[in-house]
Amino acid sequence: MRAVDIILRKREGLELSRDEIAFFVAGYTRGEIPDYQASALAMAVFYKGMTPPETVALTESMMRSGEVLDLSDIPGAKVDKHSTGGVGDKTSLVLAPLAAACGVYVPMISGRGLGHTGGTLDKLESIPGFRVNLSLAEFRSVRRKSGLGLIGQTPEIAPADRKLYALRDVTGTVESRPLIAASIMSKKMAEGIDALVLDVKTGDGAFMKAFEDSMALAETMVQIGRGMGKKVAALITDMEQPLGRTVGNALEVVECVETLKGRGPKDLESLSVELAAWMLWLGRAAPALEAARARVRDALGSGAGLRKLQEIIELQGGDPRVCDDTALLPKARESVPVRAEADGRVARIGCRAVGHAAMLLGAGRETVESRIDPGVGLVLHKKVGDLVIKGEPLLTVHVNDRRRLDEAVRALQQAVRVAPEAPPSSALIRHVLS
Amino acid sequence: MRAVDIILRKREGLELSRDEIAFFVAGYTRGEIPDYQASALAMAVFYKGMTPPETVALTESMMRSGEVLDLSDIPGAKVDKHSTGGVGDKTSLVLAPLAAACGVYVPMISGRGLGHTGGTLDKLESIPGFRVNLSLAEFRSVRRKSGLGLIGQTPEIAPADRKLYALRDVTGTVESRPLIAASIMSKKMAEGIDALVLDVKTGDGAFMKAFEDSMALAETMVQIGRGMGKKVAALITDMEQPLGRTVGNALEVVECVETLKGRGPKDLESLSVELAAWMLWLGRAAPALEAARARVRDALGSGAGLRKLQEIIELQGGDPRVCDDTALLPKARESVPVRAEADGRVARIGCRAVGHAAMLLGAGRETVESRIDPGVGLVLHKKVGDLVIKGEPLLTVHVNDRRRLDEAVRALQQAVRVAPEAPPSSALIRHVLS
Repeated sequence: MRAVDIILRKREGLELSRDEIAFFVAGYTRGEIPDYQASALAMAVFYKGMTPPETVALTESMMRSGEVLDLSDIPGAKVDKHSTGGVGDKTSLVLAPLAAACGVYVPMISGRGLGHTGGTLDKLESIPGFRVNLSLAEFRSVRRKSGLGLIGQTPEIAPADRKLYALRDVTGTVESRPLIAASIMSKKMAEGIDALVLDVKTGDGAFMKAFEDSMALAETMVQIGRGMGKKVAALITDMEQPLGRTVGNALEVVECVETLKGRGPKDLESLSVELAAWMLWLGRAAPALEAARARVRDALGSGAGLRKLQEIIELQGGDPRVCDDTALLPKARESVPVRAEADGRVARIGCRAVGHAAMLLGAGRETVESRIDPGVGLVLHKKVGDLVIKGEPLLTVHVNDRRRLDEAVRALQQAVRVAPEAPPSSALIRHVLS
Repeated sequence: MRAVDIILRKREGLELSRDEIAFFVAGYTRGEIPDYQASALAMAVFYKGMTPPETVALTESMMRSGEVLDLSDIPGAKVDKHSTGGVGDKTSLVLAPLAAACGVYVPMISGRGLGHTGGTLDKLESIPGFRVNLSLAEFRSVRRKSGLGLIGQTPEIAPADRKLYALRDVTGTVESRPLIAASIMSKKMAEGIDALVLDVKTGDGAFMKAFEDSMALAETMVQIGRGMGKKVAALITDMEQPLGRTVGNALEVVECVETLKGRGPKDLESLSVELAAWMLWLGRAAPALEAARARVRDALGSGAGLRKLQEIIELQGGDPRVCDDTALLPKARESVPVRAEADGRVARIGCRAVGHAAMLLGAGRETVESRIDPGVGLVLHKKVGDLVIKGEPLLTVHVNDRRRLDEAVRALQQAVRVAPEAPPSSALIRHVLS
């Protein structure tokens, strides 16, 4: 078998065999197939796509390029959630403790933020002392104690994906649905889970802006999961405005703690509960979806979710007192209100622009090398549909370094549109694929 | 400017600017833009093509990646010919001396054979002592003495093409018309010529089998040449059967010498004369094409072409006596006839199969590393349309190493089809683009 023949077959739109894909991925991982052949293949895949069997084979090969956690000795449901990323999307910190508190085993390997989107790891790292870079052995030990672990990508998990993703980033081959789906699913499937709930964002702040594209990506990922014998459901959820009221790492942790105390914003609470319920239901930890929802709501109401968060913070080296006193979290030196320039209703909160402004303040990364400032970000006082009076604060910016403040404020002023009428509010959960 | 943005623009089918192309080619040549970005761009070009201005810009950038010969101090016409390659295609050795004998300055940089096709350099190297790897300084000195020089690609000429071609070969991006055209034209235009005659082969033995593809490639190359301010004409010529009667390096040199003595096969003679005439005419060394033909025929009839070949052989270190005594050329130890199995007419000589058989005998290269055996090959006693009687030799195989003889003979037996009727003969020159 020769790599160039595999490229040629894909170039001509033929279906690659499982063996061809395994040969290519294994050779690429070992460095025997060079980057220049992998980028040519990726570009051919960009144009010609991949069939469902090809996409499953690619995901499996990438998963098997590294370690696959063996959780077969763990009784009960092993379930994770994955989000395609958004602005203010902090559900992991709410739902993972809730699901774990309900008896689901959650081995969650998360990512960092880039561009306008945030990342679970960055939020966790705003908790003083919290370590996301556990070794796989430490990860196992933490999970065994609490049924939950929250870490970042390790070199042992899906190294082919790590290598291919970096290559796609610089060769114009990111926006390929099968490659995106295989990248996500290879890492998740390496966690040794038997079920996965996907939160596929759609709208201005999402990676996929168009609903049809989000649906297609969700379908591909569900197909892959099923092709690998796992239970997978996808919720297509709205990202036309930020989720909750905070954007920025420590600010979002505060909001998650509040939500686990029953005092969070409704959108964040309801989406977190729904995703956690799907985790229980898919993992057979509840006899029906409605029963799963009830159990999750119980865990929220009883404070069991908050205690689970506190437990995992302590197990991973963080200061558990932040759950009782969020003032222990990093805080920006200054806060600057952005005020309404007219009476009316909030008609739109440009989600991508808000994420971009947060990045300018230091809450996100412009490049993978950028450093995060954990205390900065913004708090929305109004969401789409809310009444505002001229001069009233629409949001508050939390800032340390004022150098890019003006740019951020201008972006935010443009992002929030106040109009005489607001559009009818769109559903938070747009569609469910199961 | 970033390479990845250039890839993305091409991926989306946008037209790249002259600056973008120059940036990419220059960066790639210097090694600042890595192979994996070049192969991704090449694959995007494979699918999205290039506009004429893009193709001209690519050719110019590749040409300027290395040295461009400056022949401005040479008076008169500086003209070359390029063939897209075929089987038994040996016109260079006939027409270059003829054109030079008629006063055209011919700085010819040629290639080697690969697969079923032969290469001018391999044929020249079958002449004892002949050196094709002259330095550019030696090349200049030889040209100044004889008005003709015959060398191989040097590292100084179009290094970007050399690098890109090797990359395309292993990344499934060879078959892209703009890339093929730019590759050919960048090297030719670096010769400092002011006119170029293209012999674009079409048919079974050609790189482009379909007439339309050959036409399209010819049009692209003519466009490039004109875009660079040069006179360019393209002859689309038949490659449905081998040109002349010999395939194999020393055997072909013998045939060229015979042709320059007026005793060659008609197809080889007429195509060589026609291409040389176009060289004179484009280079304004003759007042009209018909006058150019007459001058070339005179150079053939007077022996001036043969003397010019003899002169260049001597200047480039070869044994000039081969022009008087072709027995001084390498010869295979054995000759094996392949006989007709029925009465009839030759209906077809599968050109690609004949080239492949010659390669099996050692006359060509299976890979770029293969060694050539100069004495081996085959001589066709019959061409398409000729009457044959059962048992009569169709061709003779000249062989040293018998290991792959059976395979070659079987291929040849299948390649030559004898039938009650032959198809009407196709014109040797199918079309002229000027």
